[in-house]
Amino acid sequence: MFQTRITELLGIRYPILQGGMAWVAESTLAAAVSNAGGLGIIAGGSAPAELIREEIRKAKALTDKPFGVNIMLMSPNADELAKIVVEEGVAMVTTGAGNPGKYMEGWKAAGIKVFPVVPSVALAKRMERAGADAIIAEGTESGGHIGSTTTICLVPQVVDAVNIPVLAAGGIADGRTAAAAFMLGAEGLQCGTVFLASPECQIHSTYKEMVVGAKDTDSAVTGLICGGAPCRQVKNRYTKKVNELERSGAKFEEIEEMTIGSLRRAAKEGDKENGSFMAGQIAGMVCEIRPVGEIITGIFDSAEDILGRRPGELLGGK
Amino acid sequence: MFQTRITELLGIRYPILQGGMAWVAESTLAAAVSNAGGLGIIAGGSAPAELIREEIRKAKALTDKPFGVNIMLMSPNADELAKIVVEEGVAMVTTGAGNPGKYMEGWKAAGIKVFPVVPSVALAKRMERAGADAIIAEGTESGGHIGSTTTICLVPQVVDAVNIPVLAAGGIADGRTAAAAFMLGAEGLQCGTVFLASPECQIHSTYKEMVVGAKDTDSAVTGLICGGAPCRQVKNRYTKKVNELERSGAKFEEIEEMTIGSLRRAAKEGDKENGSFMAGQIAGMVCEIRPVGEIITGIFDSAEDILGRRPGELLGGK
Repeated sequence: MFQTRITELLGIRYPILQGGMAWVAESTLAAAVSNAGGLGIIAGGSAPAELIREEIRKAKALTDKPFGVNIMLMSPNADELAKIVVEEGVAMVTTGAGNPGKYMEGWKAAGIKVFPVVPSVALAKRMERAGADAIIAEGTESGGHIGSTTTICLVPQVVDAVNIPVLAAGGIADGRTAAAAFMLGAEGLQCGTVFLASPECQIHSTYKEMVVGAKDTDSAVTGLICGGAPCRQVKNRYTKKVNELERSGAKFEEIEEMTIGSLRRAAKEGDKENGSFMAGQIAGMVCEIRPVGEIITGIFDSAEDILGRRPGELLGGK
Repeated sequence: MFQTRITELLGIRYPILQGGMAWVAESTLAAAVSNAGGLGIIAGGSAPAELIREEIRKAKALTDKPFGVNIMLMSPNADELAKIVVEEGVAMVTTGAGNPGKYMEGWKAAGIKVFPVVPSVALAKRMERAGADAIIAEGTESGGHIGSTTTICLVPQVVDAVNIPVLAAGGIADGRTAAAAFMLGAEGLQCGTVFLASPECQIHSTYKEMVVGAKDTDSAVTGLICGGAPCRQVKNRYTKKVNELERSGAKFEEIEEMTIGSLRRAAKEGDKENGSFMAGQIAGMVCEIRPVGEIITGIFDSAEDILGRRPGELLGGK
């Protein structure tokens, strides 16, 4: 049922990618997702490039399935990582924050598939012209750095604008939200938040508790006001303080000082007060920690069950 | 195919409501939606209550189908409107901005169905306890005054939290987005933006041009910063000026002065520069002016065609 151009392109069973979350997405999680029939991704973030090479090699030891690397194009490690993915024979890359044009030829020659993450129709079209193999259309409900258009508005407009396949990201964590994404025309999904709540995810246990404990309205966006990059995380003392500073008209440098290291404080130290627990709005729906394999088969078994039902039949007697 | 608890409750053919947009939703539009098999709504806004009574009577002359009235509970006309809907025998009311508890008994006794519009799970549960017949879960992609959670995140969580039927609002304008909403567990839809682009809608032609001309990223939210009510409209000089004022730390009163009358300037005067052209993010997908009947049958014919297809099959060869 879920054979699409994405499963064909990547040679995977289920059209689902695990998002390339900095400080979170490393070899153990990525390999678990790939072993479960999806495609795991190691986040390049702003880590030293050789450290990412090590993670790639660890993942190779953990799975013989394809996996990917996320490269933040504005990060200082981008040039080096662009070479490493070729040297290590990585199956695919996802890219964010910039134009991967200058790496495209080398990647294509190495058989690497390129999936840029985009927040708008214009960028999707530009990426298709640059040679992308697929587009990840990411809604504002996603965790971390975000655009402003929501998944339900963005995905069908991107689908209409390009000929390459489109994956939906943002707000997807169960069979219903997955089925909705497919109805919008997506041929694949990228999920981040739901994988935070797995034993295979190597983040601090407090981070997982923050995600599992979040309600529907427990999401906060920083960086909206002072021209920084808008960023979504679970509401806490940190987001409250940053938002207050922003509203007070504080200088960019003052706010930046507070945000530096905040994601590390969440992922490594579990600092509930001062960490940035990046997660999507759908954290409200994620209420338990489950193994990656169970998460993936759960999503697709439920989506298969739901797709094809008529409105009102979805919830049995409900 | 589209028989749900909503079509049963309201005695209508298609489970679609037209949103109660102040300065926009009057008798001509509402009657057109009801005549086409949906349910039209007259917006109470903050208009003199007797003027709304006239609109109700006009709608009755234009259709023998049921229609509704939207009552903004914090508006000074709320008490009077609450009586008028009973006196005029209106089929249903939608409510916003507050708790309809004190009117509930009178409405129930008159057989009026009550559909509160809510932005969160907590409010949905409170409304169910207060006696609501259905919940309209409205995502942040909607036009006008908004909450912060997106449709794909909000709808399934509200569906899980209440036993009464749920309608999805925000981001719905075609068969794909409608099918997605049904997959999320909604038993009905409320659409606003797509009906702005109809000949039956009595707004200034410039307003329609603004909606039809908007791209995916041409949406702006005001009121996020200075504690006012967040409000979504098409990006223009007005939203730029309000956002600049907000960022500059201007006083609430100064900003309020700019916003007063801004919706009237859009709807009645077509003032492209100084009007607030309230519309949802999905305006980017609304590209032509079509009769209300065509809009509604288009949404449901396409949704019927799409529901039941498997991922990747949605777009034919694409």
